[in-house]
Amino acid sequence: MAMRDRVVQWWQRQTVATSATLLFAVVVLAGCASFPGADPLPSWNDGPTKAAIVKLIADTTRTGGPDFVPVAERIATFDNDGTLWTEHPLYVEMLFTLDRIKAMAASNPAWRTEQPFKAVIDNDREAMAKLTEPDFFKLIAATHAGQTSAQFQKAAADWLAATKQPRLNKLYTELVYQPMLEVLAFFRANGYKTYIVSGGTIDFMRSFTEKAYGIPPEQVIGTSFDAKYAFSNDVAAVTAEPKLMLLDDGPGKGIGIDHFIGRVPIAAFGNSDGDLAMLQTTTNSPTSKQRPRLAAFVWHTDAVREYAYDRNTSVGRLNEGLDLAPKLGWHLINMKNDWKVIFPYELK
Amino acid sequence: MAMRDRVVQWWQRQTVATSATLLFAVVVLAGCASFPGADPLPSWNDGPTKAAIVKLIADTTRTGGPDFVPVAERIATFDNDGTLWTEHPLYVEMLFTLDRIKAMAASNPAWRTEQPFKAVIDNDREAMAKLTEPDFFKLIAATHAGQTSAQFQKAAADWLAATKQPRLNKLYTELVYQPMLEVLAFFRANGYKTYIVSGGTIDFMRSFTEKAYGIPPEQVIGTSFDAKYAFSNDVAAVTAEPKLMLLDDGPGKGIGIDHFIGRVPIAAFGNSDGDLAMLQTTTNSPTSKQRPRLAAFVWHTDAVREYAYDRNTSVGRLNEGLDLAPKLGWHLINMKNDWKVIFPYELK
Repeated sequence: MAMRDRVVQWWQRQTVATSATLLFAVVVLAGCASFPGADPLPSWNDGPTKAAIVKLIADTTRTGGPDFVPVAERIATFDNDGTLWTEHPLYVEMLFTLDRIKAMAASNPAWRTEQPFKAVIDNDREAMAKLTEPDFFKLIAATHAGQTSAQFQKAAADWLAATKQPRLNKLYTELVYQPMLEVLAFFRANGYKTYIVSGGTIDFMRSFTEKAYGIPPEQVIGTSFDAKYAFSNDVAAVTAEPKLMLLDDGPGKGIGIDHFIGRVPIAAFGNSDGDLAMLQTTTNSPTSKQRPRLAAFVWHTDAVREYAYDRNTSVGRLNEGLDLAPKLGWHLINMKNDWKVIFPYELK
Repeated sequence: MAMRDRVVQWWQRQTVATSATLLFAVVVLAGCASFPGADPLPSWNDGPTKAAIVKLIADTTRTGGPDFVPVAERIATFDNDGTLWTEHPLYVEMLFTLDRIKAMAASNPAWRTEQPFKAVIDNDREAMAKLTEPDFFKLIAATHAGQTSAQFQKAAADWLAATKQPRLNKLYTELVYQPMLEVLAFFRANGYKTYIVSGGTIDFMRSFTEKAYGIPPEQVIGTSFDAKYAFSNDVAAVTAEPKLMLLDDGPGKGIGIDHFIGRVPIAAFGNSDGDLAMLQTTTNSPTSKQRPRLAAFVWHTDAVREYAYDRNTSVGRLNEGLDLAPKLGWHLINMKNDWKVIFPYELK
């Protein structure tokens, strides 16, 4: 492995923001795209999407060039589930939620006779198969309600440190996509702020995104709950209520970007129809044409190394997106063909 | 004026984020507090609050020191009205709202007979004096509803460029506090992200904070409305609904910080009881003791150069805060005694 590739990989594994800041600083001071001459995306095969990403970074960082983008506008947004890590057999937060409901059952005795909790606590697969979307929301809300962010995040982090994906037998945080870590690093090294825009809850994301992706809590956009603030015994605390503030999925991703960022991203990466609004916001806002933009779907085509799915699947469905992509100039990242490796542990 | 002071002032006037990024980079690379030897707060008289700010920056940036704070955790939050700019005779957004309702009246004929709109359109001071808080909220919501962020911000920016404060006869964006611009610059030069945490609406703030304070839209927290996303004729648009998503005032400032930032700030600056939750969150969260913290109120004591008010005033009331400050170790910034100049134009 070339030294530069090793450096890139070492750097991707860093979780301390200072490192990113330093490299960012060096790059900004140098005033040019990072890794000139080296391959910034070593886990990618050559192809149109890789070429488009490399061109976007070169164009938007070329001082004085027609497509130069000031650092303040360099925003790239990333869906999480299926875009940065594996979302099969089920969204990871959903798996956490089911385990968490069981763990919380002892202190919530009413749940033993109340659906949808009873189905989960009894591990009643027949009843669970009948749960509706509002039922799932009720379960997720129950894992947050009455908790502070810190309490919820501790529970999520503990679970993530102890729970393996059943088929691949790895921690979920090991099932992040190496090629996408390289994309995150490449954008950041060129002055971009990288954001998560997830349908998952903001606190579930914040429990691992800094360590796994180098994305700090303030650059995480996710589904959020109303909350209560209290100051008692000289301690300030914000606790969640079981009522949505923002459903950051589907159309909500357009709203979340407007609410948290207030700018049109230069680039957006998703993998499902839940990301349509994020990609549309990026390439088709009224001001989109003023700057270069790039939108891409991770297209799950590799049943051997990961999973193969798109249209008519229950998790991560990409249906309308596949139809819209050619029309709006969005890229498809074909996992099987475009990615040399899928997971970081393959490099070891 | 010393050259270094001139540089500080020049730099404060820069609105291009690249400048801040570059200086930030230089400072981080140098690994020490900025302006060593020079006065980083030249518009401040010496006193306990100035000393506390200088000490905080020195302590939190001293590599290897006991109070060193990693760059990722360097967050400072600032209220806007009365903390960064003048809030008298009335909150600036409220003045904008009254004018905006009149401007929108032609396309909303129903308002001519409907309160609270009628009172505003008729300039009926007697009726306006009777307006309740929900009435005011209804007015503010009406200026946002059905608008995109870009549309609202354009209207606000146009108004700010054309409207002068009646007594001081200056644009409101000229009535920002020079000593606080120096505080913002000093924090940022030392790797801090500076956030606005305003009771005003996020879009009103975003219409001027980048230009006036060098604070980008993604670092603005404010009162926000629910919204609708639509994609029609290949154009993506988010339009506001007249329903609150987050009331970022009072207890809501604690919630807003948790929602947008997800970390406890190192420093917080406010001026009224509406900022209590922000200051409490900073100094009295469960994790506050792990790092140095600083909280301060701008205390309006200068009736000649600006305004004098605190307890029992209708705008910017500081009552409970004055009682809590000594107990919780919060600082009072006495405008009359602590600030050599109030507004940037005094330096010209």
